[in-house]
Amino acid sequence: MPKDDTKGITVKKDQNFSEWYTQVVQKADLADIRFGIQGFIVHKPWGFMIIKKIYDYLEKEVELQGHLPYLFPIAVKEADLKKEKEHAEFSPEVFWVESAGSKKMEERFALRPTGEAQIYPIYSLWFRSHNELPFKGYQSRINVYRNEMVTRPFLRGREFCFFETHDVFNTHEEALAQIKDDLKTCETVIQNKLKIPFFYFKRPEWDKFKGADATYTPDTLMPDGKRNQLASTHDLGTNFAKAYDIQVLGKDEKKHHVYQTCFGPGIWRSMAALIGIHGDDQGLVLPFDVSPIQIVIVPVTFADKPQATEKIVKLGQQLETQLQKAGYRVKFDNGPDSPGTKYNHWELHGTPLRLELGPKEVEQNACSLVRRTERKRISVALADVEKEIKKHAETLDKDIEKKAETYFKDNTRSADTLTDLKKTLQQHRGFVKAPYCSMQKDGESCSDKLQKETEGAVVCGTLYPKEEKAKAGQKCILCDKTAQHLVYIAKTY
Amino acid sequence: MPKDDTKGITVKKDQNFSEWYTQVVQKADLADIRFGIQGFIVHKPWGFMIIKKIYDYLEKEVELQGHLPYLFPIAVKEADLKKEKEHAEFSPEVFWVESAGSKKMEERFALRPTGEAQIYPIYSLWFRSHNELPFKGYQSRINVYRNEMVTRPFLRGREFCFFETHDVFNTHEEALAQIKDDLKTCETVIQNKLKIPFFYFKRPEWDKFKGADATYTPDTLMPDGKRNQLASTHDLGTNFAKAYDIQVLGKDEKKHHVYQTCFGPGIWRSMAALIGIHGDDQGLVLPFDVSPIQIVIVPVTFADKPQATEKIVKLGQQLETQLQKAGYRVKFDNGPDSPGTKYNHWELHGTPLRLELGPKEVEQNACSLVRRTERKRISVALADVEKEIKKHAETLDKDIEKKAETYFKDNTRSADTLTDLKKTLQQHRGFVKAPYCSMQKDGESCSDKLQKETEGAVVCGTLYPKEEKAKAGQKCILCDKTAQHLVYIAKTY
Repeated sequence: MPKDDTKGITVKKDQNFSEWYTQVVQKADLADIRFGIQGFIVHKPWGFMIIKKIYDYLEKEVELQGHLPYLFPIAVKEADLKKEKEHAEFSPEVFWVESAGSKKMEERFALRPTGEAQIYPIYSLWFRSHNELPFKGYQSRINVYRNEMVTRPFLRGREFCFFETHDVFNTHEEALAQIKDDLKTCETVIQNKLKIPFFYFKRPEWDKFKGADATYTPDTLMPDGKRNQLASTHDLGTNFAKAYDIQVLGKDEKKHHVYQTCFGPGIWRSMAALIGIHGDDQGLVLPFDVSPIQIVIVPVTFADKPQATEKIVKLGQQLETQLQKAGYRVKFDNGPDSPGTKYNHWELHGTPLRLELGPKEVEQNACSLVRRTERKRISVALADVEKEIKKHAETLDKDIEKKAETYFKDNTRSADTLTDLKKTLQQHRGFVKAPYCSMQKDGESCSDKLQKETEGAVVCGTLYPKEEKAKAGQKCILCDKTAQHLVYIAKTY
Repeated sequence: MPKDDTKGITVKKDQNFSEWYTQVVQKADLADIRFGIQGFIVHKPWGFMIIKKIYDYLEKEVELQGHLPYLFPIAVKEADLKKEKEHAEFSPEVFWVESAGSKKMEERFALRPTGEAQIYPIYSLWFRSHNELPFKGYQSRINVYRNEMVTRPFLRGREFCFFETHDVFNTHEEALAQIKDDLKTCETVIQNKLKIPFFYFKRPEWDKFKGADATYTPDTLMPDGKRNQLASTHDLGTNFAKAYDIQVLGKDEKKHHVYQTCFGPGIWRSMAALIGIHGDDQGLVLPFDVSPIQIVIVPVTFADKPQATEKIVKLGQQLETQLQKAGYRVKFDNGPDSPGTKYNHWELHGTPLRLELGPKEVEQNACSLVRRTERKRISVALADVEKEIKKHAETLDKDIEKKAETYFKDNTRSADTLTDLKKTLQQHRGFVKAPYCSMQKDGESCSDKLQKETEGAVVCGTLYPKEEKAKAGQKCILCDKTAQHLVYIAKTY
């Protein structure tokens, strides 16, 4: 593909995050937004290779927990979509397939907005005895479809990348334990691999997944201070089991509705966080393990030094082979562009480490190493190159992690009064911790008021699994009632 | 999931292949056909784990050739679908999304029947200079949609698993070399890994992919003697480049239409071949590397020997851990069913090796090993178990390969006259080699005649890359013209 990124990113991230994000998505070859149907994007190779890594990590984690992969159709029957009363609220958003060839179909079907309504009717056929549970299943590398009005690559689409687990248990205790395991999956993949910090919240009653008893989500902060929900895991209780008739014969020889959980790590949302949180004015910044190419080798040659050029190219190829054998994803970029253009290109794409080979380096049996995060040249003896790469890859990851954590911490504040809260949200955005009356239905009116008073901030929830408590006697930040909770408030995507 | 397979397969494969196939698909947990929308099946965990393996092998092979992964939307614009005149023939088969929520959409879109019409408009934006070519891209783990009238799991569906590469070259020579590489991919994955023998044909002019200059396909034979097309690779020439305006500036500073190839290994068709060709009266038979579980350990315990039971269970768990550490996918099946039920279950599912641990075995520090293909008990000292597993896995693969090749060879015959051909097809089915007039358009009338005379046999094509020639002076098996080719004829799915 042409390197049409020569001009690089033309805005500063902290001056215009929205435009910066759009430019990075396009110029770093993450997505092509010119497909011509709103909300449907092309995942370009560089972007999709990153997404594939995220999928691979998730598949590995859930399989370790005993999840088995399966694949359900894209289609959902209209009747199935409406079986769970609350869940049926998805209907206004769904796309309908109504014709085949030139003929109207006798029975139309929907494109899945999420898996429950297509998976649970089959679950009702699969399980008969408590002996067969727990059952844990997952679908990976699938897409779902929702007719969103406002769309944005990796944040909101009419088609977006999806991953979902659907687990079935005999007891509620097992279901709750699974929710903790889902949190572990988020820690392992989103936090440890992608270096994205987050809080794990229990959502308030009025902001649960439709049909669930409770919803838990890891939320991070984007550079514009808005909350980005990275995943969600739901305690479905026996609600869906009742709607879809999923029952097993218990030890007591009686039929029981099963307990269910489902977990959906947001592939797109994680990608958006990766782009937004780690990126800088030069473009994308990728953790070492996540990058499609981890090390780029750039030859620095001069037309008037053909002998040196020959040596440099030979050495570059050798180094590429050596590092490939050592298990790295490495590219010797011997293309026709100038070194400067190549530096910009690979920095824009977030490539973690760059090795430069020029006449001076070759003479000294060395190369220059540049970390994407620091962008300073360090001379490295070729004899030490593998050891140095290992070291600098670790340093790069720590750089990325530290920067992200600092931003996350610095933008989590507290407020005791509504005036305080409004001021903090206006000046800084980010998360604001505040006392709140109730997470049950009776707390919703305060949430409505909050949204009005703050131009859209929402109650993210209480921390999970360790809730922080409000001080004794503290009042809700929005009403006169006693605060039962300390909640986190933020503007949101 | 319940072991609802206790009765096993109730028909003989060679007496009623069609019913046998249906039973294996369902009883070996490959697919659930009760989804309720015709032609849309649920890929159950056991089946999907096999399919994931096939996908993994293919991804690895095409990436070694320099293919980059990407992901295009499921949607195709109506105008794009009709750009390539011949290719537009897909239209009668496509599903149309026409409403969102309760509203008719302003512009409907199709569910992709294959990738060309959605990928090539974007390719026309991606490439500008000959320097950027060759470009090789692929999509994996996607589905495509065609409104087929008759559907059958893994053979023909309205939704089916898809994999496609789309390559762009400066010259036709490079395109032809890619087609040979596609053949290599088929050899590596379908032949070497899945143990499915095939002929590689060049299709006649009247049976090409719509819009292609030439189509090449590996075809195998199913147990009912019908041809199963396992993949196809197409030389698109510059046809699609012209239809979708894909041009690059050449070294001569002029614009040139690019040469394209696309390759689609049939995930479903390979799965159908795997089931049909290797299976036996007990059910599925899987090559060692392809099986989700490679080794099952079954404890044989007796209620009146509790001490022995304790030893057996402990040993079974140890053996499971040991073999997992050695890199095998292994399961110690300590469930409540009887050993006999377990044997049937795992044989039905095609599990390559079974180890049995009973009181006698434990006393002798041994286990019994049973290969799925031979089903005879062999005593193996526990000290030698890893060495023996390696040996028997190889033997099992050879058993499978040999049986498949023998069937394939035995059912490839020759005929010189139409009477001969008809008799052979009636008595044996399979491939019949015969002299034929022309592979160009002027040969199509003989093909029509052939279909009528033989109740549906078709000309598969000529062998590729080494075509066998008809003898001098030989006439076409259907007309009076001189035979230019030796073609392969078969009934087909």
